[in-house]
Amino acid sequence: MTVSPLDHPLLSGLLGDGEIAAYFEPEAELAEIIRFERELLMAEEAEAVVPAGTGELVLPLLDEFVPNIARLREATARDGVIGVEFVRQLREWVGPPADQHVHFGATSQDLVDTALVLRLKAILPILEGRIKGLIGALDDLERRFGAQRLMARTRMQDALPIRVSDKLATWRSPLQRDLERLEAMWPRLLVLQFGGAAGTLDRLGDKGPAVARRLAASLGLGLPERPWHTQRDTIVEFAGWLALVSGSLGKIGADICLLAQNRVAEIAMAGGGGSSAMAFKSNPVGAEIMVALAHANAALAGGMYTAMVHEQERSGAAWTLEWLLLPQLLVGTGASLRTGLGLLGKVTSMGRAE
Amino acid sequence: MTVSPLDHPLLSGLLGDGEIAAYFEPEAELAEIIRFERELLMAEEAEAVVPAGTGELVLPLLDEFVPNIARLREATARDGVIGVEFVRQLREWVGPPADQHVHFGATSQDLVDTALVLRLKAILPILEGRIKGLIGALDDLERRFGAQRLMARTRMQDALPIRVSDKLATWRSPLQRDLERLEAMWPRLLVLQFGGAAGTLDRLGDKGPAVARRLAASLGLGLPERPWHTQRDTIVEFAGWLALVSGSLGKIGADICLLAQNRVAEIAMAGGGGSSAMAFKSNPVGAEIMVALAHANAALAGGMYTAMVHEQERSGAAWTLEWLLLPQLLVGTGASLRTGLGLLGKVTSMGRAE
Amino acid sequence: MTVSPLDHPLLSGLLGDGEIAAYFEPEAELAEIIRFERELLMAEEAEAVVPAGTGELVLPLLDEFVPNIARLREATARDGVIGVEFVRQLREWVGPPADQHVHFGATSQDLVDTALVLRLKAILPILEGRIKGLIGALDDLERRFGAQRLMARTRMQDALPIRVSDKLATWRSPLQRDLERLEAMWPRLLVLQFGGAAGTLDRLGDKGPAVARRLAASLGLGLPERPWHTQRDTIVEFAGWLALVSGSLGKIGADICLLAQNRVAEIAMAGGGGSSAMAFKSNPVGAEIMVALAHANAALAGGMYTAMVHEQERSGAAWTLEWLLLPQLLVGTGASLRTGLGLLGKVTSMGRAE
Amino acid sequence: MTVSPLDHPLLSGLLGDGEIAAYFEPEAELAEIIRFERELLMAEEAEAVVPAGTGELVLPLLDEFVPNIARLREATARDGVIGVEFVRQLREWVGPPADQHVHFGATSQDLVDTALVLRLKAILPILEGRIKGLIGALDDLERRFGAQRLMARTRMQDALPIRVSDKLATWRSPLQRDLERLEAMWPRLLVLQFGGAAGTLDRLGDKGPAVARRLAASLGLGLPERPWHTQRDTIVEFAGWLALVSGSLGKIGADICLLAQNRVAEIAMAGGGGSSAMAFKSNPVGAEIMVALAHANAALAGGMYTAMVHEQERSGAAWTLEWLLLPQLLVGTGASLRTGLGLLGKVTSMGRAE
Repeated sequence: MTVSPLDHPLLSGLLGDGEIAAYFEPEAELAEIIRFERELLMAEEAEAVVPAGTGELVLPLLDEFVPNIARLREATARDGVIGVEFVRQLREWVGPPADQHVHFGATSQDLVDTALVLRLKAILPILEGRIKGLIGALDDLERRFGAQRLMARTRMQDALPIRVSDKLATWRSPLQRDLERLEAMWPRLLVLQFGGAAGTLDRLGDKGPAVARRLAASLGLGLPERPWHTQRDTIVEFAGWLALVSGSLGKIGADICLLAQNRVAEIAMAGGGGSSAMAFKSNPVGAEIMVALAHANAALAGGMYTAMVHEQERSGAAWTLEWLLLPQLLVGTGASLRTGLGLLGKVTSMGRAE
Repeated sequence: MTVSPLDHPLLSGLLGDGEIAAYFEPEAELAEIIRFERELLMAEEAEAVVPAGTGELVLPLLDEFVPNIARLREATARDGVIGVEFVRQLREWVGPPADQHVHFGATSQDLVDTALVLRLKAILPILEGRIKGLIGALDDLERRFGAQRLMARTRMQDALPIRVSDKLATWRSPLQRDLERLEAMWPRLLVLQFGGAAGTLDRLGDKGPAVARRLAASLGLGLPERPWHTQRDTIVEFAGWLALVSGSLGKIGADICLLAQNRVAEIAMAGGGGSSAMAFKSNPVGAEIMVALAHANAALAGGMYTAMVHEQERSGAAWTLEWLLLPQLLVGTGASLRTGLGLLGKVTSMGRAE
Repeated sequence: MTVSPLDHPLLSGLLGDGEIAAYFEPEAELAEIIRFERELLMAEEAEAVVPAGTGELVLPLLDEFVPNIARLREATARDGVIGVEFVRQLREWVGPPADQHVHFGATSQDLVDTALVLRLKAILPILEGRIKGLIGALDDLERRFGAQRLMARTRMQDALPIRVSDKLATWRSPLQRDLERLEAMWPRLLVLQFGGAAGTLDRLGDKGPAVARRLAASLGLGLPERPWHTQRDTIVEFAGWLALVSGSLGKIGADICLLAQNRVAEIAMAGGGGSSAMAFKSNPVGAEIMVALAHANAALAGGMYTAMVHEQERSGAAWTLEWLLLPQLLVGTGASLRTGLGLLGKVTSMGRAE
Repeated sequence: MTVSPLDHPLLSGLLGDGEIAAYFEPEAELAEIIRFERELLMAEEAEAVVPAGTGELVLPLLDEFVPNIARLREATARDGVIGVEFVRQLREWVGPPADQHVHFGATSQDLVDTALVLRLKAILPILEGRIKGLIGALDDLERRFGAQRLMARTRMQDALPIRVSDKLATWRSPLQRDLERLEAMWPRLLVLQFGGAAGTLDRLGDKGPAVARRLAASLGLGLPERPWHTQRDTIVEFAGWLALVSGSLGKIGADICLLAQNRVAEIAMAGGGGSSAMAFKSNPVGAEIMVALAHANAALAGGMYTAMVHEQERSGAAWTLEWLLLPQLLVGTGASLRTGLGLLGKVTSMGRAE
């Protein structure tokens, strides 16, 4: 089904981002969940939480495990999270006596949150690369057209002539700061989630910290001071960053729409959008999309801040709210970056004829 | 791909609504678009805008037309709307000389907006039926438990004993008013979109109003005073209504979560959600989902209001923003109603042991 | 203090609305609260809930009552609502034995909600009058400039010539529908709040309905089926309506900004805003303000929908959230209407020189 | 007037923050604006942009300058910004010939943005101090009650016993990260705005950078690579941070509300809020306020992200939107911190009787 145009068969070329959306396929999530269980088992064996030899027995089974998707879907509708039934199926697959050592001391939220973070670890470099690509495209435009004059407009009225390079600089600096912000956020965001039922690793006794340390290391994630089951600030901070990036792109889009107006014509692009009624038109579609995604992401980010009110030791309501909002924020930001890269690459002139 | 949990292979049992989401399948949309083109052709033939006999020639072809989805997707990424390439393919399929009579005087927005309204015409009765179902379920709970006492709680503290019927009444009245609102909104919302390139039906000369009248009648839609290409208040009003319904359900969900607390235990339900770490738990998952969807829909509705700033005679940015937000608002509201119906049907007791 | 530009000493001429903001002065609220207490006492005397003669004794005292504002402010910081200390002071002022008959059976929320509704009753006609005024101003522009041609622009590109009357019609129709919506909402919104401690009028025994009926009649308000302490749909529906009106005005503002661009010049207005650096400029300030208020109100309305999740029999959190958002939504909408009226009155030309 | 409860005569004890709101008094803003003009003049004299001796002549006049507030208010309603009339009055006060040297090369946005940043420079340490105070209060609670047991609750159901220290840690860590984030954001945010009419300091020729450097240094602000007239990411990033802090406090508030429930009673506080109808109640008002402010600030932050779409070289619409949203976000966050400090200081017990 296709509720979101971000992964709609007809619209996702316009509004989606196949590269990033792929990480939200169930297969991608389940692969990370299985990876979590595997590394957990090895960490627990190394720390003698589970008997020596458990890994040798179980790991080959994990590699072959294929969950029953229909039953997973059905049970998730009851449990509110895929982990419960997933673990049940996995333990059934492994069989006694080792089944009791699988997922030992962990909880569903550990699986789902860590599987998200593992995918973010792959996605952040993609976003970073595109932001750098966009900065590069702006540098290229500066080389080509930077010395051209164009009209500065304030409060929608002509102000004074400036240079194309002046405008490009105001597009570029926020992106450079977004890279700074990303770098600062990275170690806060890419951390293990591992806390067990109530966030205290109660079943691991005094082995909890050592298992967590091994698990984080083997997954290539940072080790937070404590599990962040109910500390959602890092995820929400990330959502804010996505909206910030989208907003900077929305400003570029709005400027391009205004520059491309027929009476203004201070930018020209190849390959504008057509019209079913007016064959003569060349619409700045990509620029409009960047504006639309900026506004959509602003609303989604606003919703993410409400998810901070995450009551007690696990809020089904607040956590589910993140699932409803974050993936589309992420794919929408990716789509806007992708669109911006395509659009800037098609610019054939900037500035005024003098 | 599965960016939204509303149509996610694993999560849509929990958070989705298959019945309503089906209307957002491309096939469903394209079927309504073809229906629009068919009825338009007949209306234009009846008004002698296109030559007599055009329908006889073209209608069978329309019935057999299967668009090239790959090319549609690709062109939509350029044009920003599916109508341009769709009409091109359709005209190619029809071939000369009748191809020039297909889509005559219409524009892409006419197709997309009317195809949305035609699907809303099918969806509104579903929502109405579920709201009535929920009211019926509340009536049923009243019959079963209405006379039981329970504690009123204000500002999160015990206040005074009330009856279960008092609480049920505060859940029911907003839903009854939502039905009133729906009835008032219906004729504003379910209207034809038909304005052509600039909303003036310029190519139809003085035949515009008559064609529009016939077209609306044959599609079973109301005829608005004018095309509403840039008058988005009816769509946004509908989004607000969806958030209102979701919010009323979110209140019910929050109340159930609080009543179901172990120390309170003033409601009991069969079939609660399980835990991967704590086998003894029975979580009020459905109630939490209703809270989550209320918050998500509040954020989405907020974004829809920004789409009112729809500049000039067609805003690609503001229109696209609606596409990004409205379908999920609709499916999310449907999912919350579906969840509420399921949840109330599983209530096994309400009120306090006395 | 001046946290909001809507009532800022320097900015409220630009962004405020003195006429509507006056209803949010503490004096205006306290006057309605005292009125509630007076009419409640009379209704209770008429229904023999309080002894005959109580009114004769107490009403003159109510007329002279001046609350101690400093103590009211201080106690409100503790109680979360002004009613508790207000009633304490009022009873102290009245003195025994009649003090026990003051506010009998009512609760703070009855005071605050009804005092809001009583002020809305005065404010709605103001909003209605301004919307009608705006429609009149559009009619006037149509008479003056309707036949002029101007360029339709779709997706920010020139499309086809239309008439000024075409554009004016797209500005006017949503406002006409907003009047329809207001009329439908009116009886739902302007209703008494009277439910006592837990919304059940528990202290009034079987006299509750009769007292409520008298009280509603004497206050000139509708009588709802039940108290709506936790049924916030009517208030939130109103917030949505305000955002809808603001959004329609934001569209007008955006169009005017675009039409007034130097290279477009299809609208001209007297009295544009000046610049400290560029004496030659005439900025379409009012039009920008309408866009800004549309966006602000969209965000505020989004927040109001989250206030629907109003837990149990009175949520301090959700109710306070309304106080934080609704007044500014109301004043901001009033300011936008006021600005629109001023702006349209200053239009000196529309359409293109031909 | 009192549109916002944040500065309402009766409600601001509950919902406001006098210390921070004082920075939004017009007097506070105008003082910083005059300071900007003074330091600009000195910087321009030092760089020989204005004649030697101008400062000696003008600075004493600046110290005595009192703007005509009524005319400022009136003109701002026309100009959309206070700077235009402010500079006019100031130049009139200074008189020829030095009047032409006042505000030379600057624009209204330089005044308003820099005056905001100068006040943020004073406000950030207040916020920082309160966050540290809150962390200290949590440390104190840990010393007093950390070893007590309480019940972990997940998905609103009892899970497992944990320690009070476990819960306090989940409240504290996000605040510690907020301090990290503040430190990283500080140098991006506290920078001079100085760009002149179109952001290019066009009137200063090659002296622009040197004047800007002197001006930043004398105001104690950082010097950004370029003016940020249309680069609003730093302001919006700050808004996001405020919503993040508010959200972390909202989580604490929600937890306290739930812990303080009568049947749970795992926290007790002195000085709860009273009721006008139920004298026995002690409501956790402060905790509810923290939830309300978290939700309000989430909505406001969402709106701030839409202000990123700041078109061209100065958007009256997007800039005004910031004025409508940011001050209340700031004061609301301050109020939540203040409330949290008060509330935690009144805790008399945590954890369960065992």
